[in-house]
Amino acid sequence: MKETTTNPCDALERVFHEPNRLSIMSALCAADSGLSFGELKETCSLTDGNLNRHLKALEEADVIRVRKTFVDSKPRTTVSLSRVGLDRFNEYLAALEQVLQKARGSFRPDSRKAGDAPLTAAKPVRAG
Amino acid sequence: MKETTTNPCDALERVFHEPNRLSIMSALCAADSGLSFGELKETCSLTDGNLNRHLKALEEADVIRVRKTFVDSKPRTTVSLSRVGLDRFNEYLAALEQVLQKARGSFRPDSRKAGDAPLTAAKPVRAG
Repeated sequence: MKETTTNPCDALERVFHEPNRLSIMSALCAADSGLSFGELKETCSLTDGNLNRHLKALEEADVIRVRKTFVDSKPRTTVSLSRVGLDRFNEYLAALEQVLQKARGSFRPDSRKAGDAPLTAAKPVRAG
Repeated sequence: MKETTTNPCDALERVFHEPNRLSIMSALCAADSGLSFGELKETCSLTDGNLNRHLKALEEADVIRVRKTFVDSKPRTTVSLSRVGLDRFNEYLAALEQVLQKARGSFRPDSRKAGDAPLTAAKPVRAG
């Protein structure tokens, strides 16, 4: 009988987990007064369409703020973290840390070598 | 002008990144001789359909082996990591570690407090 343990993967908030959104959130964490659409696009190497799609999802989840203003008669979109977004992203990172620790801890002794050099001639261990 | 830096999020192998697959891979890392379908289902709290779907994706990516045998005339499915799967998952975890470090490093000084206590009355800083 297996004991029931909490699976740390369950605590990963899906809205942040997509790699591009992780990238967007990290960039916004570093930007005190937000980033323009163009800056985010460049930092995260995303197309307009992709960035728009992710920003929409993050805005709907209430974790970012998107402000549209005019600068020299040109439209400017500024994106920043919301307070709740900052807290939730922090919690997400803590959960990610736990997942990572658990996964690292699961590695079998021989598999730890995989980080140092490619494994060679390793076969499943069989009795006899 | 922004300098171009490598985005660590780009190195996250998507086949592992889905939380349930992360959970499956972690469980398999800890199981030297593989796990039965039932054990995996229980460990990862997944339904038959969901587990099947994720196993299919992982098998197609060549990172796990699925063996079907008969034990006491009953079919038994045993899942184990492939050698290449072990290496690639190890690389994925290293990439995840970098993403985490980068995200943690991006946190603004005041936002670091968020890990200790809920943020209160913090407002965007404005000049003047």
